[in-house]
Amino acid sequence: MHAAVIHAAHDVRFESVPDPVLSTGGDAIVRVVASCVCGSDLWPYRGVTETEEPKRIGHEFVGIVEQVGDDVSRVKVGDFVIAPFYDCDMTCVNCRNGFSTSCLEGGWWGADDRSGAFADGGQGEFVRVPHADGSLVATPEQPSDELIPHLLTLADVMGTGHHAAVSAGVGPGKTVVVVGDGAVGLCAVLASKRLGAERIVAMSRHESRQNLATRFGATDIVAERGDEGVDAIHAMFDGVGADCVLECVGTKESMDQALRSARPGGQVGFVGVPNGGPELPMRRMFGTNVGVRGGVAPVRNYIEELLPEVLSGSLEPGLVFDLELPLSEVAEAYSAMDERRAIKVLLRP
Amino acid sequence: MHAAVIHAAHDVRFESVPDPVLSTGGDAIVRVVASCVCGSDLWPYRGVTETEEPKRIGHEFVGIVEQVGDDVSRVKVGDFVIAPFYDCDMTCVNCRNGFSTSCLEGGWWGADDRSGAFADGGQGEFVRVPHADGSLVATPEQPSDELIPHLLTLADVMGTGHHAAVSAGVGPGKTVVVVGDGAVGLCAVLASKRLGAERIVAMSRHESRQNLATRFGATDIVAERGDEGVDAIHAMFDGVGADCVLECVGTKESMDQALRSARPGGQVGFVGVPNGGPELPMRRMFGTNVGVRGGVAPVRNYIEELLPEVLSGSLEPGLVFDLELPLSEVAEAYSAMDERRAIKVLLRP
Repeated sequence: MHAAVIHAAHDVRFESVPDPVLSTGGDAIVRVVASCVCGSDLWPYRGVTETEEPKRIGHEFVGIVEQVGDDVSRVKVGDFVIAPFYDCDMTCVNCRNGFSTSCLEGGWWGADDRSGAFADGGQGEFVRVPHADGSLVATPEQPSDELIPHLLTLADVMGTGHHAAVSAGVGPGKTVVVVGDGAVGLCAVLASKRLGAERIVAMSRHESRQNLATRFGATDIVAERGDEGVDAIHAMFDGVGADCVLECVGTKESMDQALRSARPGGQVGFVGVPNGGPELPMRRMFGTNVGVRGGVAPVRNYIEELLPEVLSGSLEPGLVFDLELPLSEVAEAYSAMDERRAIKVLLRP
Repeated sequence: MHAAVIHAAHDVRFESVPDPVLSTGGDAIVRVVASCVCGSDLWPYRGVTETEEPKRIGHEFVGIVEQVGDDVSRVKVGDFVIAPFYDCDMTCVNCRNGFSTSCLEGGWWGADDRSGAFADGGQGEFVRVPHADGSLVATPEQPSDELIPHLLTLADVMGTGHHAAVSAGVGPGKTVVVVGDGAVGLCAVLASKRLGAERIVAMSRHESRQNLATRFGATDIVAERGDEGVDAIHAMFDGVGADCVLECVGTKESMDQALRSARPGGQVGFVGVPNGGPELPMRRMFGTNVGVRGGVAPVRNYIEELLPEVLSGSLEPGLVFDLELPLSEVAEAYSAMDERRAIKVLLRP
């Protein structure tokens, strides 16, 4: 089969790789119907994190189950399934606590997981899925083609935006600021609207993203950043800031922006992969009682909650995809996202 | 009148200071019935924070209202009142949001507050209280002498222990680890019990403190620290850690202990004044989804909730006082706490 392999910064290739083979009894092989490129894929693509040897890449996909191991009982051949951006057993204590990203057995696509099983990268024609019963969620029936992009967001961006909102304590009547206008930030706006927030500010300088944020429920747009951005937020919220701030970027600057945009006693929910800002100013947090909570989003635990609304058409997170390419043009997909020509690129075989 | 003044490290004196005078219309003068020494008073006493010039000290007191300004309406002459460890108006947006420590007008005892009004130190015979209507809470009647220590804890330690528990999300069925066996840590145990925690581990190496922790509701005691302490906690809780960890010390080591004792998706509530550990490891927090929330406790917002239980005798946080001295021996009070001869010292005029 063929799959995306990253060789070095700015060097992603669509090339021949070994066909996946069932091996653990609990695994499944999924034929990928759609995959996509994540903002976090851009870290190795840009060389921010080093690629020491060629490596399978991609961690968001939906598809059809082609084969299952002898021990698999929850999913069956022919099912349309959504995979989270990691594999997990959904039976260990961390999965049961709602944090399947800390599954004691699971791991990440494109590498060996904690149980020692290799999981293919998600940007490929097929993926071997360890812990298939835990990892995969089947839809009740085969979805229409129009639903595919929306369903695909449940693999990562919609669940991650939802996690930012949940971690920040978003709920009815709350005021919300979303830092970051990438696909996750936009999904965080949608999640905040869905959770009943009263006012939602999207911080964005790009017109197309501002428009989508507004469609997703943003009540206000702030284009300023840094001190000016903080001043604008304070001016909107009693001079002190918002109840909930959703940090969806992952830089030192964006976290600083987030912390200063929250009112005393407010909460920052963060899902941006920390990159360049690994430390938090504890004295500032102490003085203001601004809490910080979040991290790698347990999207598998959210799929059952979000899926019915996607299937009914009331939740349309797939609008974040603004470019679609054949999987064979995966290199162009990375390039388009790197150059911000696209918010998020969907790939079909 | 006489009051405690810190001149330098290990140099606290009981000396003559100006009598307080009403000056703002909204202030009151309180005759102190009992005050005490806080763990955070030990930072300047030990020279960890510098004392550049002689300074009034002490921030926990209860007493009788002697005089009130013309604009004061909620408290009256003769009332027995509890003062939080800061003054606040309880009308600004931060006070209304539940975070009166961030009051836009208030400030700290022994200094000018944000409105420019000087507030006396709490370890004195009298205290001028700015924003008396906001700051002071009167009891329905004059309390018995036995209730004084318990009421005094509502000025700081009991409310601060409660804040640690609230910030960590303690509630029915939750598992809790308390790092720190000072008066605040012990009150955090009591607060966790009160909030319905299922299991409460007190980390303590001192027998008298272990005994009080047990009386306050601790179900387990762990004497180990560092890696051994973390291993002991993991062994008790499914190999992954506890739901809620209450950090009541404020050092780099204690915060590290706390972060590693929380399970993935758990929450650290911190109230130890950060000292030597001002930064938090964001990558670790991201990977584990352990949240961190807390800070300078808005104890004024908690007094109404806790007071009825103290008055009824069902809540006895005053047991943290294990030494009582006359205010004139305030220097010995500091010495006893510094040398850990006492958990907490109560001072009477």
